[in-house]
This record gives sequence, structure tokens and C-alpha cells, in this order.
Amino acid sequence: MGTPRKHGEPRGSSPRQELLYDPDLPTPSHAEQARTLLAGAERGVLSTHAVDLDGHPYGSLVIFAQHEGAPIFLVSELAEHTRNLRGSSRCSLLVTENGDDSPLALGRVTLVGTCAPVDPADAAAVGASFLARHPAAEYYADFEDFCYWRLEVTGIRYIGGFGRMSWVEPPTWNAAQADPVAAHAPGIIAHMNDDHADALRLYCEAFSKAGSVSEATMTGVDRYGFEISAHTADGPRPIRIAFDHEVADAKAVRGQMVTLVKRARQQLGRS
Amino acid sequence: MGTPRKHGEPRGSSPRQELLYDPDLPTPSHAEQARTLLAGAERGVLSTHAVDLDGHPYGSLVIFAQHEGAPIFLVSELAEHTRNLRGSSRCSLLVTENGDDSPLALGRVTLVGTCAPVDPADAAAVGASFLARHPAAEYYADFEDFCYWRLEVTGIRYIGGFGRMSWVEPPTWNAAQADPVAAHAPGIIAHMNDDHADALRLYCEAFSKAGSVSEATMTGVDRYGFEISAHTADGPRPIRIAFDHEVADAKAVRGQMVTLVKRARQQLGRS
Repeated sequence: MGTPRKHGEPRGSSPRQELLYDPDLPTPSHAEQARTLLAGAERGVLSTHAVDLDGHPYGSLVIFAQHEGAPIFLVSELAEHTRNLRGSSRCSLLVTENGDDSPLALGRVTLVGTCAPVDPADAAAVGASFLARHPAAEYYADFEDFCYWRLEVTGIRYIGGFGRMSWVEPPTWNAAQADPVAAHAPGIIAHMNDDHADALRLYCEAFSKAGSVSEATMTGVDRYGFEISAHTADGPRPIRIAFDHEVADAKAVRGQMVTLVKRARQQLGRS
Repeated sequence: MGTPRKHGEPRGSSPRQELLYDPDLPTPSHAEQARTLLAGAERGVLSTHAVDLDGHPYGSLVIFAQHEGAPIFLVSELAEHTRNLRGSSRCSLLVTENGDDSPLALGRVTLVGTCAPVDPADAAAVGASFLARHPAAEYYADFEDFCYWRLEVTGIRYIGGFGRMSWVEPPTWNAAQADPVAAHAPGIIAHMNDDHADALRLYCEAFSKAGSVSEATMTGVDRYGFEISAHTADGPRPIRIAFDHEVADAKAVRGQMVTLVKRARQQLGRS
């Protein structure tokens, strides 16, 4: 296998390419990315201490929703994880981004904490949040062995893909909001790529160091801006473009797209 | 919410329909189904004891392969799960079936046991198994902070979907083999549904209690037989048809399909 390499040390001698945009542009924080991931997910893996197996960490598939920012579950007393939680409330919930990418490139978050049955006084409100996300659970929600549990999160580990990871501090986690644009992102991306390829090229030429761009494809959009894969003379390169301000909905994204294309034309002397 | 119901008690009064086939037909065991699931998967969730978080159960995404029937991993000493395993070798690996079905209808297996670094004498053989399954890992396999770990499985929990679950005994697990037909199943199913709809109807009419069948769709195939959704006078109904003997490959499946269609024609007096 030759000489062992250090983690992250590139094979061969390809020097890192210069970034074509300012890396300090506003970008979703790890806490925000994790909140967005959680908001878009309906299932995760609950790790508990197995009561029947000497406290071994035990993973099981669960569906979840959120209530007042905390993960909630509807589980049967007959399930392994419920019996385990009755023995020890300590657990974690892992939620992984969907996708056919290389698994380790997928975003994921582990929420560590303690899980307890929901206070009967809160059960109706928690149940409403849960059933809004999982209408099919209405069928068994009133079985007498089922009840709602809530995870009180005390530790947050976010992994955004290869080499992008951090522990998020609980106050930061509590303050962070899921991206309001996320649910609209696929539609926005399809629309821009189908109908506004010219605008995408203009953004790159005006607001990045790409120079001339033969083709540009939008790959992501969030409350702070959007990302493009630009075909440059050096091949495809990632570019991030920032909005003028944080946006709250899809309509505001559209407004920013129009503003930015006018500014790009002006700046490039093309009108 | 009205009177609580007992788990599994149906809402309303729809009586169970009579099964249209013999429930004792040979069918993959839970151990075999779990082995098949594992053989087809490349990722899972490893649950460990978090060293930095007071032993909390900690779930993380991993890719895995198998070597001599045991799950193997290639992990960095920098990863949380590796640091956790250095603190306590106790862990579990959860593997979930792919699919867009309702999450709780998906098959999944939790393998509980202890994880230890692979003996240096075995590292080359284990590495060959791992890289055959994950060729892209070759890029970092020789980083000096990476090494191979093996899970010694001591407990096996299989859940085949709603209400179908069991603990599999370790000797049963060790003896069980993944289904040799599984990798070919999508091709066989597409071929039968596209080109042999007539044969599928004949199987149902000859070998089940379905009576006259207007349409029949193959939904699954395994080493012991196959499954059909048959449109009967009472609507779509599941039917299982057994092979004469366990088959070892796709060619043997084809042989059985031909044998069974001849027998069905003869039995129904259609030739």
C-alpha cells in the first residue's frame, strides 16, 4: 500500500484551485443546515440502551415530527426502543439527508439527549403536531399501548459531508431556524435552469472571478443566496452568489433574482 | 379520541379475508431475509456509547461491507464512532431496506455486538472485501488514521414491516445465507410482467384458490418461490407460488417458471 498518508493529504500533487467567489459570503450555518435537514425529514434512527442486552447501544428506525423545536415520537410500549427508554432515557436521533450520492457525502445530524413521555396536559398539542406530519399514524394513535415521547436535545453533531462537521452549541441550536426557502428549492432550481440559463451566466460573469462562462447550472438555493456550477475555461467550478439580504420566502427569492440580473447587466455594460 | 383500542385491533368490523394460498409454503426465514437485506446494502447506522457525552447512545452513518459473514468498516481514528468504540466496543449496526414506502413498512435489521480493530494479519483480506464493495474508499484506505474494524454479532433483531419481527438466534444467523436470486429479482419481475402476463394468471388459477384472475402482477421472487398480486372478483389479492425446490440462480428460476406453466396448463386442461 506504500507510505501511509495523513488524513486529507491529497494523492499526487494537484494544487488547490483558487476559489472563484468570496468564501465569507453569507452561508447557512451548521445549526441552520441541521435544522433544515430535520424539517425536511420524516424518519430517523433512534439509538437507545438495550435493556435486554446489557446496555448495548441499540439502533432502531423511527418516524418523528417536531413540536416547539423538539423531536417527538409516537411509540408503542411493545417496541424495543420504548422498553429501552423506560430503562434509560438517554438516547440520540440520527437524521440523514435523502439522496443517491455517495453515502458519506450526505448531510446528517445526531441529536443527543433524553427522551421522556409527553406530559398528559401537552399530549393533545403534541399529537396534533405529530399527526399533521404523519396523517397515517392516526390509525394507531389511539391504541392504548401507544404514547407520545419528546426528545430534550442536549448535544448536536452536524456533518455536512466530507470534512464539514461541528458540534453545535445548544443555545445556537435553539435559536436556529430551518430554511424557509428549502421546500421551494427544487422548483426554483428547475425554473432557473430551464428558463434563465442566460441570467445564471450573467451572475457568474458579474459577481465572481469566473470570467467568461459557457454554461451555468444552479445547484442550490437558500435564504442567503444560491450556488451555481459554472463551466469555465478551467472546467466546471462552484460559485456562490449572495442575496442583498436574507429572504423569507420564494417570492423574495424571485425579487432578488431580478434585482441581481439587472445589476449584472449594468455592471457588464450589457443592457 | 374515544375508547382506547388494543394494539392490532382493527378499526371498524372488516373481517380478515381468507388467504388464497397455503401459508405453510416455503418462505425465506427472518434470518434469511435479514441476510439478504444486509447483502444488498452499503450503508447503515452504527450506534455506540459516546465517550464525550456520558455514555449516551450515539448514532452515526457508516458504510460497511462483509467479510466471512461479519460486517466490516473502514473508519478514521478522528471519527466520533471510532473514539467511542475505543472507549467501549459495544455497539449495533442498523440496516434499513431502501424504498419510498411508508418508513415503518420497510424491512430492517439491527445487529448487536462488539466491534474491534481487525488483526493486522487479516487486514489485507478484509481490505480486499471492503474495497470490492466500496472502490471509492481506495482513495483514503491508506491514510494512516484509518483502519478496518469488524463487528462480532451476538444479537440479531429483524423487523420485516408492520407486525413481522423476531430475534434471530446467533447459530441460525450464522447458518443463514443471503438470497442468491435477490440481485436478479428486479430483472426477473420486469421480464415476467412485461412478457408473461398470461403465465402469471395461469399460476394463480392453477395453484391458488383465486379462481378466475383478470390480471396478475409479479411483486417478488426469492429462492423458494414468487409472489403475485392477482386481480380477483374480490379485488387485488396476494398469492404466493412455491418452486418445486430451492433454486440457486436466475437460470434455475427460469427453469421452474417453465415447468410450472406447463403443469398449470395441464392441470387446467389448457394446452
